Amino acid sequence: MCNSSKSDNLSPASNDASSNSSNSQTFKVTFLPYDKTVSVEKGTTVFEAANKANIYINSICGGDGICGKCKVILDKGDVDSAPTTNLKREEIQSNYILACGAKVKEDLQVLIPTESRLEGSKILSDEDARRFVSALSDEEVSSRFKLEPLTKRIYLELNLPSMDDNAADHERLYYAISEKTGFENGTTQTGYKVLQTLPDVLRKNNWKVNCTIGHRGKISELVEILPGDEKCENIGVAVDVGTTTIVAHLIDLKTLKPIGSEATYNSQMKYGEDYIQRIIYSMQNEALEEMQSSVVNDINGLINLLVTNHSKNLHDITAIVCAGNTAMTHFLLALDPSNIRKEPYVPTANNIPVLRAAEVGIAINKRGLLYTLPSVAAFVGSDITAGALILGLCDAEELTLFIDIGTNGEVVLGNKDWMMCCSASAGPSFEGSDVSHGMRAARGAIEKISISKNNDKFDVEYKTIDEVKPRGICGSGLLDCVATLVRNGIIDRTGKFQKDINDDRLRKTEDGYEFVLVWEKDAEIKADIVITQADISNLIRSKAAIYASVSTLLKSMEMSVNDIEKIYIAGGFGNYLDIRSAITIGMLPDTDHSKISFVGNTSAAGAKLALISKEAFEKANDIAAGMTYFDLMCNNKFMDEFMSSNFLPHTNVDEFPSVLAELGATA
Amino acid sequence: MCNSSKSDNLSPASNDASSNSSNSQTFKVTFLPYDKTVSVEKGTTVFEAANKANIYINSICGGDGICGKCKVILDKGDVDSAPTTNLKREEIQSNYILACGAKVKEDLQVLIPTESRLEGSKILSDEDARRFVSALSDEEVSSRFKLEPLTKRIYLELNLPSMDDNAADHERLYYAISEKTGFENGTTQTGYKVLQTLPDVLRKNNWKVNCTIGHRGKISELVEILPGDEKCENIGVAVDVGTTTIVAHLIDLKTLKPIGSEATYNSQMKYGEDYIQRIIYSMQNEALEEMQSSVVNDINGLINLLVTNHSKNLHDITAIVCAGNTAMTHFLLALDPSNIRKEPYVPTANNIPVLRAAEVGIAINKRGLLYTLPSVAAFVGSDITAGALILGLCDAEELTLFIDIGTNGEVVLGNKDWMMCCSASAGPSFEGSDVSHGMRAARGAIEKISISKNNDKFDVEYKTIDEVKPRGICGSGLLDCVATLVRNGIIDRTGKFQKDINDDRLRKTEDGYEFVLVWEKDAEIKADIVITQADISNLIRSKAAIYASVSTLLKSMEMSVNDIEKIYIAGGFGNYLDIRSAITIGMLPDTDHSKISFVGNTSAAGAKLALISKEAFEKANDIAAGMTYFDLMCNNKFMDEFMSSNFLPHTNVDEFPSVLAELGATA
Repeated sequence: MCNSSKSDNLSPASNDASSNSSNSQTFKVTFLPYDKTVSVEKGTTVFEAANKANIYINSICGGDGICGKCKVILDKGDVDSAPTTNLKREEIQSNYILACGAKVKEDLQVLIPTESRLEGSKILSDEDARRFVSALSDEEVSSRFKLEPLTKRIYLELNLPSMDDNAADHERLYYAISEKTGFENGTTQTGYKVLQTLPDVLRKNNWKVNCTIGHRGKISELVEILPGDEKCENIGVAVDVGTTTIVAHLIDLKTLKPIGSEATYNSQMKYGEDYIQRIIYSMQNEALEEMQSSVVNDINGLINLLVTNHSKNLHDITAIVCAGNTAMTHFLLALDPSNIRKEPYVPTANNIPVLRAAEVGIAINKRGLLYTLPSVAAFVGSDITAGALILGLCDAEELTLFIDIGTNGEVVLGNKDWMMCCSASAGPSFEGSDVSHGMRAARGAIEKISISKNNDKFDVEYKTIDEVKPRGICGSGLLDCVATLVRNGIIDRTGKFQKDINDDRLRKTEDGYEFVLVWEKDAEIKADIVITQADISNLIRSKAAIYASVSTLLKSMEMSVNDIEKIYIAGGFGNYLDIRSAITIGMLPDTDHSKISFVGNTSAAGAKLALISKEAFEKANDIAAGMTYFDLMCNNKFMDEFMSSNFLPHTNVDEFPSVLAELGATA
Repeated sequence: MCNSSKSDNLSPASNDASSNSSNSQTFKVTFLPYDKTVSVEKGTTVFEAANKANIYINSICGGDGICGKCKVILDKGDVDSAPTTNLKREEIQSNYILACGAKVKEDLQVLIPTESRLEGSKILSDEDARRFVSALSDEEVSSRFKLEPLTKRIYLELNLPSMDDNAADHERLYYAISEKTGFENGTTQTGYKVLQTLPDVLRKNNWKVNCTIGHRGKISELVEILPGDEKCENIGVAVDVGTTTIVAHLIDLKTLKPIGSEATYNSQMKYGEDYIQRIIYSMQNEALEEMQSSVVNDINGLINLLVTNHSKNLHDITAIVCAGNTAMTHFLLALDPSNIRKEPYVPTANNIPVLRAAEVGIAINKRGLLYTLPSVAAFVGSDITAGALILGLCDAEELTLFIDIGTNGEVVLGNKDWMMCCSASAGPSFEGSDVSHGMRAARGAIEKISISKNNDKFDVEYKTIDEVKPRGICGSGLLDCVATLVRNGIIDRTGKFQKDINDDRLRKTEDGYEFVLVWEKDAEIKADIVITQADISNLIRSKAAIYASVSTLLKSMEMSVNDIEKIYIAGGFGNYLDIRSAITIGMLPDTDHSKISFVGNTSAAGAKLALISKEAFEKANDIAAGMTYFDLMCNNKFMDEFMSSNFLPHTNVDEFPSVLAELGATA
């Protein structure tokens, strides 16, 4: 980790005589292509300096010197570098350094190459943000629930008090609220501060007021009372708090229509790429509050951007609904996450009370409410609850399978009578990490690819996001890639390259075989875009984890793939996932394609639904409570299934009849 | 009022040359018999100096120079005095001054004579405090409700988490609470701060904890979680926040037994003797916060005393229930009281949400809850709701009349089917003010008196509280006194002294006739204790207000006294109220004595009941909501009834057959 105690551990050779004489020297580090300069103390790593400049460098390990992802080019100046095996000889000769292992000892100019950039800017472009939107139609989903937002703002004209009607201000207001909304008597509560302002607000505004009323389970809260204005707005925010990406949707709570959405990379990436690393970081550095600030600032940034872009007022945002994995929920609320990663994997809370958003630092209306959707278990968060909610799993007649693919793959199986869920670490391949030219589903990522043979040479066709020159390959592209490699017999069913193939694209390096997907001349980066033997092995492990989860769940229920009537795939693959490829490589069970739908970001979609429907919000509690968590970590059957799945498509080919037919010749 | 702007208005003659040269001179004022000394600036009134010394001097007008009650004797030093008609020639010669009209201009020694003392010390003696306790038996009352206190502290030993049972901490705790208490799932909420401490508290205490759970209407709150200790205490406070006296009862919420009680004069008396004066003061001086502090400090003082005397810990007090008139509730919560006194008499709130006691400054457990019983209307407060609760009015089969007599007389008529209530200003006679030798029901007050003729001379027998030498006469003594005067024909049925009576005790002064009850030699004070023509007129007006209220309510319902099956009289009369006398003077309707009970302080008793029974607390809401307020202020029939009641017992003697028989000879 990039904490200071770690930095002090550098090899003594590199911080010789000078270290004693000038402890507090500062130097300037300029980052290109952004042309941002920061001043840092001697000994600071380039990675830390980049964080200080708000520039996000690719990193999986969070600065631990392990992943080798944070390669940058030293343009001017020199650094103290620890020895590393993560840089090739020719990279070192081209002035490549690992940002996390290089300590500043004079003024520097550093170039961040395309492949190490996290999109250049923190906020994703509109195009990218759109990729995180649900693929489900709003109309279809919302028809299942009564649409009544979690917070309401109603305009009231109260009867003037008279000797015949001299009810107290508070009761007069409640009576008017009850008349307008049908809220039952005795179910509304008022905050002390609101009560104190009541007589003044009522009389100064001639008994015409706007009341904001918030849902709090069995009761409602009179959140705020304002001078009456029939045109006053009421806005809500639905947020998917992902490990990698945070997405916010602004919703008009009067019309229930979306106003806009924005997404940003989760700034917590500097503490570690996956949430287990972040939990470790937070415990080792007592950094829980700092990590809360980090995610809260990201959310506030998105909200501010939305409010500015759409000419809205923060004060009119009266509710925010958040969904995310259990760890991210803990970070957001600064709840102790340490027991999540220790057997027996116990979160602090799955059900989170309704809080005032200001209590955690979220800057909306200062009395606005924060709703957090409930999690199921340490490794099945409220993003899954939100998904099950939007997909209607708990009301489904037919047996339904819901798979949410990310760094963790969560699987839910069930219908209105029962629901089982589990989670397996799929590794970061689907997110574009742990893969030589992997990247997230963003501009320039290959999302679709196919190989064909043309005059005895392999021809590669691909499509990138936004149809620009390729920078790398994202999850959906990787699935496609491995499927097309096996279809063309370039790899065998164990994923091994067929050495006897004679083609320029297949070549041997000191690390083993690799296949060139895009030649440097056609790429945005200064290298051939390749897929290596190691990449394929990583992806096979990832897909095996998903398939083994599904398979173990099914077998534990004594069911088979044929019993499943509907399969939903969610995840950050962008807009595209080739279902045929996913079956070919054995990630998804071999079943009728018409049963399978790709549904995009169901976490954000579920949060949006809960925001505009109290009924849906309450349903989420039933869903979380009704889901049985099935632990795979200590399950021997899962390990067997996982081992059997480490083939393309599977050791037991009978489970994949259509793939057998497809690959017959090469199988 | 004793505010500084008022003090500046003194006659120019009295603050001559010296006022310019030495603005910031301070002088010492010593008060006897307490021997307390304070330093005050030149120009401060003696009344203000006494307040600073925490010595409460009798005053009705709150220091306005009107009532003439704050007579003190100047022992040493001199003051600047404004001219007054409230001191007699001989009083001035004996160095009497009015404390509120005398400005300090040198060091002083001031003697506060017995009749001007408010009990010497702020906190009432145990004997006095006992007078504010309900006359009802706890057992009888509490049998009507399920006894379950508003806050509970339960000891829990949680199951240790395991791979087979890895529920989140929060859900594990809720499950254990639900198992122990039977609370329904989904009805408990947790504060954010408590949630954050959960993992630590559970693990550091080996999963053994104490949970404090508070009732909040439809839901419960997990108020606090502490290290497990089976012996840990749970304590509540029930408070009657009276205009004149504040009474606090400490209750063990585990055994539901009383621990102790204390009473104190309401320090707000310095702002005015009745609550209308105080509302005016608060508006004119923007002093609402100051007045809140005043009553909150009184309550905190009582709680501290109770906790100290009974070796308890403030932290173990988890709930406080308050009852009081509507204005006092507004002062306690710093809710705008100004509309209470302006037509159409609208309180800010009758129903008060459950608050955290710390929000208003009450110093119990810092997360402890403040429950305020609901009021009915501007002039019928939660003291009446508490009374109706403890007396079971809303469940009564028989038609019941409940009269609470104080500065205001509140009357409730009804049974389980309907309840009507009204309020009339009875004036301060019953509280001992507005009467020459009136005093509160405290040590040395004549509470019982009868006159008989012995050898052509009138003989007076009396009983004082604590059977010490008399200092004055309290409400019950006054009732007795007027009844015995009319029975002996000393006054006629209009209340006029019979001038032709030849007796030392009946004498004429420059203010009119008066009757000597106690000669100076037998009294604790340096004067004869007398009842004057004016006193009798005041008392007749007071009793007329009560009777006219009852009568108007009955007639509005087309009912008669004979329809009433039960009459409860509550009020601060001490332990004694002679029902016969009350009927003789026409305060109470002429009915079978067995129907009438004197029930003491029902406000405190109702608050105690609500504290130990959630069911009773909720019932109070039904009672307040179910009571119809009947306004007398703009009611012509009430004025007619009031005029007819300005006789002894009444102009229509047919309404008082037993009194007619009794007084036949003199009527």
